[in-house]
Amino acid sequence: MDKKTTSFDFIIQHKTTAEQSWPGAARAGVIHTPHGSINTPSFIFCATNGVIRGVAPDQMKEAGTQVILSNTYHLMLQPGPEIVAKLGGLHKMVAWNGPMLTDSGGFQIFSLGGGSASAEIKGNRKTKRKPLLIRIEEEGAVFKSYIDGSIHTLTPESSVQVQRKLGADLILVLDECSPYEVGRDYTAESMSMSHRWALRSIKEFEKEKVGSAGKQALYGIVQGGVYEDLRLESAEFTASQDYFGYAIGGCLGSNKFDLKDVMGMAMAPLNAATKKPHPTHLLGIGGVVDIWDGVAMGIDTFDCVNPTRLARHGGAYVRPKSLNNSLDRDHINLKNSSFRDDNSPIDLDCNCYTCRKFTRAYLHHLIKAGEITVSQYIAIHNVSFMNRLMDFIRTSIMNDDYASSREIWFSS
Amino acid sequence: MDKKTTSFDFIIQHKTTAEQSWPGAARAGVIHTPHGSINTPSFIFCATNGVIRGVAPDQMKEAGTQVILSNTYHLMLQPGPEIVAKLGGLHKMVAWNGPMLTDSGGFQIFSLGGGSASAEIKGNRKTKRKPLLIRIEEEGAVFKSYIDGSIHTLTPESSVQVQRKLGADLILVLDECSPYEVGRDYTAESMSMSHRWALRSIKEFEKEKVGSAGKQALYGIVQGGVYEDLRLESAEFTASQDYFGYAIGGCLGSNKFDLKDVMGMAMAPLNAATKKPHPTHLLGIGGVVDIWDGVAMGIDTFDCVNPTRLARHGGAYVRPKSLNNSLDRDHINLKNSSFRDDNSPIDLDCNCYTCRKFTRAYLHHLIKAGEITVSQYIAIHNVSFMNRLMDFIRTSIMNDDYASSREIWFSS
Repeated sequence: MDKKTTSFDFIIQHKTTAEQSWPGAARAGVIHTPHGSINTPSFIFCATNGVIRGVAPDQMKEAGTQVILSNTYHLMLQPGPEIVAKLGGLHKMVAWNGPMLTDSGGFQIFSLGGGSASAEIKGNRKTKRKPLLIRIEEEGAVFKSYIDGSIHTLTPESSVQVQRKLGADLILVLDECSPYEVGRDYTAESMSMSHRWALRSIKEFEKEKVGSAGKQALYGIVQGGVYEDLRLESAEFTASQDYFGYAIGGCLGSNKFDLKDVMGMAMAPLNAATKKPHPTHLLGIGGVVDIWDGVAMGIDTFDCVNPTRLARHGGAYVRPKSLNNSLDRDHINLKNSSFRDDNSPIDLDCNCYTCRKFTRAYLHHLIKAGEITVSQYIAIHNVSFMNRLMDFIRTSIMNDDYASSREIWFSS
Repeated sequence: MDKKTTSFDFIIQHKTTAEQSWPGAARAGVIHTPHGSINTPSFIFCATNGVIRGVAPDQMKEAGTQVILSNTYHLMLQPGPEIVAKLGGLHKMVAWNGPMLTDSGGFQIFSLGGGSASAEIKGNRKTKRKPLLIRIEEEGAVFKSYIDGSIHTLTPESSVQVQRKLGADLILVLDECSPYEVGRDYTAESMSMSHRWALRSIKEFEKEKVGSAGKQALYGIVQGGVYEDLRLESAEFTASQDYFGYAIGGCLGSNKFDLKDVMGMAMAPLNAATKKPHPTHLLGIGGVVDIWDGVAMGIDTFDCVNPTRLARHGGAYVRPKSLNNSLDRDHINLKNSSFRDDNSPIDLDCNCYTCRKFTRAYLHHLIKAGEITVSQYIAIHNVSFMNRLMDFIRTSIMNDDYASSREIWFSS
């Protein structure tokens, strides 16, 4: 809907054959936004509270970053959408002049419910957060602020209103992000409610089109958990709406279903039901193998807190050759005493600031000395690494050698 | 001693009249080192463990930094001088290609003794550190490692040996840094021992002159606490040795003696006893007023952890006009809710990265949101502020308007 009246656009530049990138067809494209373009496939880095942890905007740019995201849930509580608007919007406030995305708050609503279930989506992390969700009802979600205990309601309408004030380029409809453990019936009901919320979100979004047409573009979210028929239904519903982009949300795996299968359940019907290309985002997933798999299914953008979170724990991304080609791992832990006198950079092939300047031994020393500045340096590398991975994948698509490039990435 | 055979040199470019900068004569100069020159007066930033907290080397350079220091005590315990040497020395390890200084470990020995007394030198901070000093004897100081409890001895000789391995340009003789509370007798005895230690340090330093002549230059330290006759004796002793530079150490004030008076006790005889100019460093002091006072007495360089420490607590340096010309304070605290929607930079006159990019309101938001990345941004400003202050002072000396510039600094 945005294309006709706005500066948003999504162009597919090249698509590989399905043979090259089974089971779908990986694609390279460009998402145009009022704050610049995103060459896809691309990684979206998480600036939850409006800051990439440890990496300044200029350092993000230098590390090849195209697009970042912030979380509506966090920013609506602190500093509040009015303050962000008063400061000129999110781009100006955080000094990021490139494309930005905000989520809708849906994932946080869900994880406020208790937290144990969120582990299913993101891995198996335990969260110690107290349940702050009061109830989810047709109108929206009622929750307590984690900051001051005040009661808030997030509705499809208010989520769009808040995201309007934040002013990110790409915004999301509110959804309920239901975990695997709730079972099929709840997932089905939740999906239906998310669809009704989506329609309300669209209606709210359309209201202000006259005033701020072209400033923001809306993404719908495919729900349906690990159930193939629900994913089909949700994909068809989503494809029937006039969204600029699509996101794949909800439960993306469990012990019984792996991410790749669930991505397939969502992407196959979405690709089938969609006539023209829409930029498609996979919510909250950003493992290296997952990205290769996701791109093969037609996913264009990914987000994950791992590049900076891993850095805070001493983890630095490397290619498998540095891990004896272990595909189970994607990083080294610089806390390890084996790096005590390792005079090489994190990654010899990396040209990031950290790899140009510092050795593994120095970074290890900083960790041992309790100097948290080290997490900045590792984060810079991790950001650069993810951007380099996305570049590598994009080039392989353009060159029609996705399959062999994937092999090269993991073996050399 | 270094001048004849090495690339070290200290040139006075201009000296104001004593009338301009009572009671001495402020001077602008250049310290030449193998890693570049330092225009003086200059501030030396503390990279205790070999890292400026929150500010990367390139950001330090961009903020106008000329010289940094690291602490021998910390680096000898972690990662150890052998590792630093194996990594190519401190400059290479920490990726700082400019001038560097290391202290001797003396201040840490002293503060290991208990800690309550150290407050006298630096202010009134309480330290919770357990006493780890076992004893100070003629041979040196015996102490427990704060890392693993292992027993170490630091002697004048081993301090020089460790500093040789670290490889900083400017190195210091080992001294005992005695606090005010030990009284006059202890201070006198301690000073005499520090003088004997100084002679041993010089002897050790001279040993390797053939091998590494010109790579490092030695600073002596004037002791004597708050006692005018002792400061005189120590200044005359120090001036009689063939040091490249001088440092003012020991107790620099108490409730009864203010810093300015004690600086005068050390600097007056030092200036009187010195025939040719030596770069002179004030150890561990870096308040804005103190710097103006110190420069007036002929001090060339200052160091203090405040620019980065203050930043970690939300404190950002501003000029007095932003504080209603209160001379008691030198910073604003961005935690304060008055900055909640303050759309201006920390300092309108500042051109640092942080002031170019971010508002007070955003920095306040990051503090409220618990995002420690904010301390990086404030640290960048504080470093830039101190460098700007030193530039301003230096220019005022060159222009013979030190007195009026000081007034302008504090009133506009």
